[in-house]
Amino acid sequence: MEEIAEDPDVQLLTRTRFVGISEAWESDAEVDGLKVIEAAGRQCYESWSKPNPQTAKNADYIRSLITKGHYSVLEHVDVAFRIRKVSRVLSHQLVRHRHLCFSQRSERFVDEDDCTIIIPSIINDDPELRDAFLRSVRDARETYRYLKTKLREKLRDFPDKTLQKKMANEAARYVLPNATETRLVMSGNLRAWRHFVHMRSALAAGPEIRKLALKVLRILQDEYPAVFQDFHVKVGTDGTEYAESVHHEM
Amino acid sequence: MEEIAEDPDVQLLTRTRFVGISEAWESDAEVDGLKVIEAAGRQCYESWSKPNPQTAKNADYIRSLITKGHYSVLEHVDVAFRIRKVSRVLSHQLVRHRHLCFSQRSERFVDEDDCTIIIPSIINDDPELRDAFLRSVRDARETYRYLKTKLREKLRDFPDKTLQKKMANEAARYVLPNATETRLVMSGNLRAWRHFVHMRSALAAGPEIRKLALKVLRILQDEYPAVFQDFHVKVGTDGTEYAESVHHEM
Amino acid sequence: MEEIAEDPDVQLLTRTRFVGISEAWESDAEVDGLKVIEAAGRQCYESWSKPNPQTAKNADYIRSLITKGHYSVLEHVDVAFRIRKVSRVLSHQLVRHRHLCFSQRSERFVDEDDCTIIIPSIINDDPELRDAFLRSVRDARETYRYLKTKLREKLRDFPDKTLQKKMANEAARYVLPNATETRLVMSGNLRAWRHFVHMRSALAAGPEIRKLALKVLRILQDEYPAVFQDFHVKVGTDGTEYAESVHHEM
Amino acid sequence: MEEIAEDPDVQLLTRTRFVGISEAWESDAEVDGLKVIEAAGRQCYESWSKPNPQTAKNADYIRSLITKGHYSVLEHVDVAFRIRKVSRVLSHQLVRHRHLCFSQRSERFVDEDDCTIIIPSIINDDPELRDAFLRSVRDARETYRYLKTKLREKLRDFPDKTLQKKMANEAARYVLPNATETRLVMSGNLRAWRHFVHMRSALAAGPEIRKLALKVLRILQDEYPAVFQDFHVKVGTDGTEYAESVHHEM
Repeated sequence: MEEIAEDPDVQLLTRTRFVGISEAWESDAEVDGLKVIEAAGRQCYESWSKPNPQTAKNADYIRSLITKGHYSVLEHVDVAFRIRKVSRVLSHQLVRHRHLCFSQRSERFVDEDDCTIIIPSIINDDPELRDAFLRSVRDARETYRYLKTKLREKLRDFPDKTLQKKMANEAARYVLPNATETRLVMSGNLRAWRHFVHMRSALAAGPEIRKLALKVLRILQDEYPAVFQDFHVKVGTDGTEYAESVHHEM
Repeated sequence: MEEIAEDPDVQLLTRTRFVGISEAWESDAEVDGLKVIEAAGRQCYESWSKPNPQTAKNADYIRSLITKGHYSVLEHVDVAFRIRKVSRVLSHQLVRHRHLCFSQRSERFVDEDDCTIIIPSIINDDPELRDAFLRSVRDARETYRYLKTKLREKLRDFPDKTLQKKMANEAARYVLPNATETRLVMSGNLRAWRHFVHMRSALAAGPEIRKLALKVLRILQDEYPAVFQDFHVKVGTDGTEYAESVHHEM
Repeated sequence: MEEIAEDPDVQLLTRTRFVGISEAWESDAEVDGLKVIEAAGRQCYESWSKPNPQTAKNADYIRSLITKGHYSVLEHVDVAFRIRKVSRVLSHQLVRHRHLCFSQRSERFVDEDDCTIIIPSIINDDPELRDAFLRSVRDARETYRYLKTKLREKLRDFPDKTLQKKMANEAARYVLPNATETRLVMSGNLRAWRHFVHMRSALAAGPEIRKLALKVLRILQDEYPAVFQDFHVKVGTDGTEYAESVHHEM
Repeated sequence: MEEIAEDPDVQLLTRTRFVGISEAWESDAEVDGLKVIEAAGRQCYESWSKPNPQTAKNADYIRSLITKGHYSVLEHVDVAFRIRKVSRVLSHQLVRHRHLCFSQRSERFVDEDDCTIIIPSIINDDPELRDAFLRSVRDARETYRYLKTKLREKLRDFPDKTLQKKMANEAARYVLPNATETRLVMSGNLRAWRHFVHMRSALAAGPEIRKLALKVLRILQDEYPAVFQDFHVKVGTDGTEYAESVHHEM
């Protein structure tokens, strides 16, 4: 039976390992990615001896980079996530982020007969709206299956079987609703993730992508605290969460 | 009454005007954008006197740039199109092109009560499939209207009326099908457009985006012939058109 | 005789022409590029009838886009400049701007025997320092000529004459100073130019690139006033000019 | 005493660690980054059960992605290098690569009194040319020291000591030659690195950047063999090495 989902599922897929550097320098950071950022910053100024006591500690060093707007140094650490239980409404917004990288479940190749359905909370909370919503989505899926079967029959003499399946899927999927689940591997460097969190966890962002951005933020604050310490999660007048940083540029 | 569309509508929105350059040089090109490309190329080599007779003519000069893979020079000329009668299946693919720029009709703000429906040709050509398709899309739209109305009622005490409308629209739109029309202003430089045409007019591209890429190609061949002369439109074994260039890199 | 230059030379190379759009809409803007921006914005909301009187005028519409941070709409208008009398110190900083496009005079192909020399104002203002500076730069150029001549002799049996010249130039140029003039065609969309001006006309920017950014800003304020009206030129405590906007994000 | 260098120094700075994925799938790859690529590819097709025996092995899977031109999947694995003993001729070319990320030793902040000098091999091999080259570079450095000292004196009443130093350095450095060593931390995803290697290890690339690209290629072939197996190092008619792949697009 199909699954109904209201919240994105986000899993950390990669971490950055620091291999080492041939300089008389050691960082007090415990996280490899944070060492990489400090090393890249110190390369710019050749400040391996930590001449400035106020930025001798890694967390202070990174805070100082962010305060000065020296964001390019954050580009050397990359993070990939696997994201599930999100709609194609959301993924259409996601892929506008040019500095992030995407591998997305293909509706041209994958059968969506039993895919999970993403329901907006405001609809899920009202039994009457929820019923209308699910009936519509299920009817659409019924038609999807019908069209796909009929199209494969029509194309049964097509020599290339993979192409035949693809052609049927890609036409049938035009009836699938925005609510259809998609899945992605999504990656980028910490500067790009800061920009993503800044844009998408803000109060102006839509409810679904905001939930995603907040989950991403919480993982990144856990993994790379010094880089995301300036973001704070708050609760809006409508009871939903959003996040903000004191820094405006990203 | 709603409109059913099968083919993208593409209109040229901008041209590049050449203001002039203070060099003892004149191009034989009749199109401003082509002069800009030649000027940028000649800036690299300071070859204003056209020392090489084989590339003295603009068309030969640009052919030579493309053959040598000196594509960065094509980046100085920009073209914007307005695109209508395309589905959100297509626009989701479009916006993956990082070097192109997009302004897209917002389903969060615009009412989709009477939007055009995009139907795949393979479905449109079969009356039985067409009927099933349209019934499903119309039912979905019916539910969209119902959800939107009910949600606005639910949110009627919300102080911010724009936000109230946006919240209702953005939840209701989860039932809208992929076949819903979207519209875009889409722009980029000629190098980015070459890459787009190369990827999306190829035989491996889906039918709808391939139609779009071929329309774009034909306009660009008309506007900037020297830059797109290496692309040739062919007919595949299934009777549909695609385009190819002798150059592999873009 | 060689030329000594202290200030960048910036010339506008292109303008964007608006071809037209099939909507019952007319803009009061007099500049084509500003119409394009308004059209792209109105496409997002299908607000061709100008429902909001506060943004019915083009200048107000664009001010509103910028205030809301809806910068992507500025990406549809492109501007190219030709830049001369700048050093390779400056061009090395320029080409870090990923969203701008560059065609640069090639030291591998162009003879730099008589190139212009860029002198920092702080050195030019002091006759003693100026003398030391020019003597050093002229000596370097002398060695450049010597190395180039000797290398061409060494490679005289090389079958490919273009390659022979290139190999000699590209080795000899290692002695050329940072002060050597370079020239570029440089283009990008208005969002990218806003970011460039924001970064490079700021007080923290180096003197030479700041002069360039201020010249670019003044031309853009003249060409596209509505898009650059939020930048203001000020004079710092050291008597040099810089620019600032009330908006932090770009 | 100063050091004279002819060859770039390249050190691997980071590796990508694969955290894991909640699917009934296991890769035979021994390298974490290669697992990430396979996982991202399988996400597109939900082919966790390895339905195609021809691509069940990781190396075959990745070869197939590259052959089909499905390069976006390579974007999820990032590599940073530290690069030393390269000239600012080279770094000026490097930073044109928009999809790579850079933290570069700053001539505005770092004293270049005793910096390493990069000498082209073709000059280093000829004692007479080498002498002329080193004399010129050393004279330039002498003037650099003189100008810097004089400028600091001139600015001795300047309240901000960091700024005073920066202002002196950034004016004095205009006499420094292209041959001055620079150092960088440079990172990017494997797709960007494939493009870099493709462009810069080719026969048409200049000698210094070609040496760098070949060193990068060898490390990447060692670290991520499946992703760089299509590149082959060859020896040109002039005795220097270059690399080529059978694939034209990157």
